[in-house]
Amino acid sequence: MKITAVDPFYLRMPDITTAADGTQDTLLVRVRTDAGLEGWGECDASPLVSLTVYCCPMSHGNIINIRTSLIGETLDGPDDVVRLSEKVLRNGLDIQQIEHAYSGAEIALWDLVGQKLGKPVYRLLAEMSGTSDVPHPKLPYASVLFGDTPEETYHIAVGLRERGYRAAKFGWGPMGKFDEANDIALVRAAREGMGAEAQIMIDAGVVWGTDHETAYQRAEAFAQFSPTWLEEPLAPDAVDAYGALTQKRPSVPIAAGEGSNIYRMAEDLIVHGGIQFVQIDAGRIGGIMPSFKVRQLAEQRGIQYVNHTFKSHLSLAASLHVFATNSDFNLLEYPAAGSELSQRLIADPFPVESDGMVRVKDLPGLGVCVDTEAIRPYLAPVRIEVGTDAVFEQGSL
Amino acid sequence: MKITAVDPFYLRMPDITTAADGTQDTLLVRVRTDAGLEGWGECDASPLVSLTVYCCPMSHGNIINIRTSLIGETLDGPDDVVRLSEKVLRNGLDIQQIEHAYSGAEIALWDLVGQKLGKPVYRLLAEMSGTSDVPHPKLPYASVLFGDTPEETYHIAVGLRERGYRAAKFGWGPMGKFDEANDIALVRAAREGMGAEAQIMIDAGVVWGTDHETAYQRAEAFAQFSPTWLEEPLAPDAVDAYGALTQKRPSVPIAAGEGSNIYRMAEDLIVHGGIQFVQIDAGRIGGIMPSFKVRQLAEQRGIQYVNHTFKSHLSLAASLHVFATNSDFNLLEYPAAGSELSQRLIADPFPVESDGMVRVKDLPGLGVCVDTEAIRPYLAPVRIEVGTDAVFEQGSL
Repeated sequence: MKITAVDPFYLRMPDITTAADGTQDTLLVRVRTDAGLEGWGECDASPLVSLTVYCCPMSHGNIINIRTSLIGETLDGPDDVVRLSEKVLRNGLDIQQIEHAYSGAEIALWDLVGQKLGKPVYRLLAEMSGTSDVPHPKLPYASVLFGDTPEETYHIAVGLRERGYRAAKFGWGPMGKFDEANDIALVRAAREGMGAEAQIMIDAGVVWGTDHETAYQRAEAFAQFSPTWLEEPLAPDAVDAYGALTQKRPSVPIAAGEGSNIYRMAEDLIVHGGIQFVQIDAGRIGGIMPSFKVRQLAEQRGIQYVNHTFKSHLSLAASLHVFATNSDFNLLEYPAAGSELSQRLIADPFPVESDGMVRVKDLPGLGVCVDTEAIRPYLAPVRIEVGTDAVFEQGSL
Repeated sequence: MKITAVDPFYLRMPDITTAADGTQDTLLVRVRTDAGLEGWGECDASPLVSLTVYCCPMSHGNIINIRTSLIGETLDGPDDVVRLSEKVLRNGLDIQQIEHAYSGAEIALWDLVGQKLGKPVYRLLAEMSGTSDVPHPKLPYASVLFGDTPEETYHIAVGLRERGYRAAKFGWGPMGKFDEANDIALVRAAREGMGAEAQIMIDAGVVWGTDHETAYQRAEAFAQFSPTWLEEPLAPDAVDAYGALTQKRPSVPIAAGEGSNIYRMAEDLIVHGGIQFVQIDAGRIGGIMPSFKVRQLAEQRGIQYVNHTFKSHLSLAASLHVFATNSDFNLLEYPAAGSELSQRLIADPFPVESDGMVRVKDLPGLGVCVDTEAIRPYLAPVRIEVGTDAVFEQGSL
């Protein structure tokens, strides 16, 4: 089949706040083919900046937009996705935002190929890599922000426990903004609210920058509450600081990687940063294939791959296919407090099943349907003029 | 003084081709203050994509645009530039394009601070780092594309020699696209055209991807023509392949780094890629300060820092200030075949002086003036609407 249209859609809530809540807006990408199929993907990125990567005028042979690279191309199987990804990235060599933007289209290409071949994406990946195609359930951890105070955090944790979560990650907000006693009180509140049996994870939200000494001290101080990991204590590119931190073998394992905009950043963090959990957002790193490459590297290095997902269940679907077939990689970031937009985006979200687990769908492609009716009210139509040309006019949803 | 306005301008030639010629368009950034001063900077990036980073609506606390971060802020000295850079990058944590876009504004901030304090930027950097503030002349190498054939390349080289160039870099075009014999013939033509006394450099334009074996073979084959370096034989993020290549100690030194979108990419290439020349574009990596950090790393590691500049002499000025005070770093990429736009952009370009050298200007700030009259015909006004809001309307030049 041939690719006939590539359409980005900027969706957002009426009010956007500075909270570290990635579900307040999103960029969806729809790819259509002459076979009457359509695939969808979601980017975790600035919607407007990424949208322009689909339509920016050519600057020279290394700045050519994604639409130009994709429209008219043949798409029949996984090899075409690989070929087209190479073309898009080569044509966008000098566009820094290329991976953030292309992620949505790449995911949509996998969705299309899976639909055409009647296979779920995880199975296509298994065939391509010659590995097991048996999917395994994942333990979802609710991914929420800390409350402003330990008390508020405690109540959030109790609420999650009452909703049946056996694992939860608390992040950002006040963590690292006041003193050590407050940081410890926040973690204690999370543990007490979730109960002794639950898994808790702590996300420091890059708050200590390059200060690996403070990060180490906090890891030691938090160890009494047995968190599964301490996430992003340092800046995404502070690889040497990560290396210094992990060489001290803190009592709490270190997690990072959501800021990996390219495969090399993840590899760098794993090989030189010494992290023990690598967290990859398929909606940032360029889609499913580079995420799968990080999964494979994690397998080789004996560390755990985890998804980063703070968007809708469309992103969750893409994330799940990447590592569904590895039974050791058993944790799933599961957005539990997202915006109305992110909750309505998919008609058939992933339920937490009666055994407390989440399973990838054994349906062709990503296996989820975008609810275009439900999300239409959130569409922010974009129009871009450069000189006398309208380089982007909003397609209909 | 306070920052009152931050205005990006998209300029372009009437016809844009796929040639690897970065001077066909550009993004200028003008920053104005309430002291009546204005500073300018230039980005080497997709103008439209980078422009949106100045105006994109907030997504959450990690996606806040550059204008929001800068307007109203105090700017009195170098410390303010450092502080504002941290703010911009922190607010843009989840915008992949942030460094490409911010480069123009960062350079403009240095221009402003230099004007206010009556000092050239290189001197501010010297004061800040406690190093020598004596500038040294640079040997300009003409930076041109290979001709389509060895014969055409020979004539280009002869032309450069006749114009007085003692060094020239030939790149992209047919290099690596045909067979080894053609690659060698191209380099021979460059050497013969420039003469035995000249320095020549070869830029392979990332053509061998991750194939370090072919890159090594070419380096050995080119050695008979004594090029100063073989540049970017591999993809910008193929750090392991660079490491494998340089560990074989090819007879021609390896240069790379223009694709460093963040400081860590340059550091990674230096430390793990083992390159001997690091080429940094201040218009991509986030401006003058991160470039200066790479210069300092190069000094520590005993390798040579070189600018990457394929824009106007505004970019050349920014590049020069970064390493003017290091006499060992004596080569300067000097765009010699740029578009009419790039040649008219600056009223007072850097001449190749009678001794064949180029010198930084001992004037406040960057020391160059944008010729707004001359470039006005090239302005491509941009207008961006999101929903019912005009998020960008073109400021007047």
